[in-house]
Amino acid sequence: MSAARTLTPDEMEAALRQIGAERYHHLHPFHTMLHEGRCSIDQVRAWALNRYCYQRIIPHKDAAILGRIEDTVTRRIWRQRIVDHDGEIDDHPEGGLRRWLALTDGLGLERGYVTSMQGALPAVRFACEAYVGFVSQRTVLEAIASSLTEMFSPMIIAIRVKGMLAHYDFISKDILRYFEHRLTEAPRDADFALEYVKRHATTPETQAAALDALRFKCAMLWSQLDAIQHVYVNGAPAPGAWAPGLALAERAA
Amino acid sequence: MSAARTLTPDEMEAALRQIGAERYHHLHPFHTMLHEGRCSIDQVRAWALNRYCYQRIIPHKDAAILGRIEDTVTRRIWRQRIVDHDGEIDDHPEGGLRRWLALTDGLGLERGYVTSMQGALPAVRFACEAYVGFVSQRTVLEAIASSLTEMFSPMIIAIRVKGMLAHYDFISKDILRYFEHRLTEAPRDADFALEYVKRHATTPETQAAALDALRFKCAMLWSQLDAIQHVYVNGAPAPGAWAPGLALAERAA
Repeated sequence: MSAARTLTPDEMEAALRQIGAERYHHLHPFHTMLHEGRCSIDQVRAWALNRYCYQRIIPHKDAAILGRIEDTVTRRIWRQRIVDHDGEIDDHPEGGLRRWLALTDGLGLERGYVTSMQGALPAVRFACEAYVGFVSQRTVLEAIASSLTEMFSPMIIAIRVKGMLAHYDFISKDILRYFEHRLTEAPRDADFALEYVKRHATTPETQAAALDALRFKCAMLWSQLDAIQHVYVNGAPAPGAWAPGLALAERAA
Repeated sequence: MSAARTLTPDEMEAALRQIGAERYHHLHPFHTMLHEGRCSIDQVRAWALNRYCYQRIIPHKDAAILGRIEDTVTRRIWRQRIVDHDGEIDDHPEGGLRRWLALTDGLGLERGYVTSMQGALPAVRFACEAYVGFVSQRTVLEAIASSLTEMFSPMIIAIRVKGMLAHYDFISKDILRYFEHRLTEAPRDADFALEYVKRHATTPETQAAALDALRFKCAMLWSQLDAIQHVYVNGAPAPGAWAPGLALAERAA
């Protein structure tokens, strides 16, 4: 790659957006099923239960990045992500993690079972661990570039909320409130991260590394849905994983 | 678990063997396909190419464990695993990693492509990273207990070698030589690790941790085959991953 020429900031942005167009999980068949109303309630439960693992590591990965950023100005901006996700004392106001539990609660899953992650698929947990490892070990530029899937999330969230409300009688606007907040948080976060990457990735090598970081993140999100689809759509055996009927709160059982 | 009673060493061994009977990847449908001759050459290539990621991390995980063992006597024994896997200068004699490449060579895959892991499935890489992370972060007892899948491997290796030689004309005894060596190495390693775990897991808490470590390892092996089956048997899309026809050495193309 060292013989490649340096991209202009606009070309860099276009290259990042192209990765999203080809690899972001809006293209994953499980999401199409989910949004078009073709999932059973148990498939939606499996998705929400497993994706809790991803929600859980977001403050961990943001704290890992925060601890590695040298300048105060960038740290002040980055710390807002942790505030948004963890919320305030007694959930006043609540944060993104608590809002995700509103979804698993609303689907009738026992909260302690969800947060224990004992029924989550190992492949989902491994992908989430890999993300924390990535942002801890790579350059800060790569860590920030890996967050850029947020550029693409408003598109999928709009489709998801509309589709799930239209197709599932067990879904309400209130239990999907996580996504409503992300519609304003994600673009703000993505705008900052995109400007950071365009400003700091200024050589062929650092540009290639930033593009690879976004490919890694897309693969990490994609592999979670692969695992869910393999077990809960295609019916592959999954020793020890959640199965329909398990860990339902009394009113939902 | 703290209210549970302590198992006797024999009960502990039985509990470990029970985990293998229920969760080891000899039960995985992809292995059944592979051993019964129902895989195409490209499915065998996908398996060998991806499993290289696992072979690759074995010396890394053994070195991580070695660096955490306090007593000289145990270290002297554990280091043999690294010798076995890495071999000696100029491959005289060759080690397990080189023997695995004899398999991917024999299947016609370009060696540089295999060792770059660029075509490996992200889920397989994440599982392998999780294993190195596990042995680096948990207790030495848990790290050693996670190696105990070797208790079960001679069984699957015997079936694999016999089945693959019988069913595939592109497989020879020579390119399967990795497994022949594992038939003597694995039982020796497993005997030591089993005795270590029985001697050091002497409370309900440490016994539960050791059993969980073996469950983790079974899940880590299982999830690799799930990913391979999902993409190369069920035909799920896998952006960026190896596809039939790619990276074949000239004589095999």
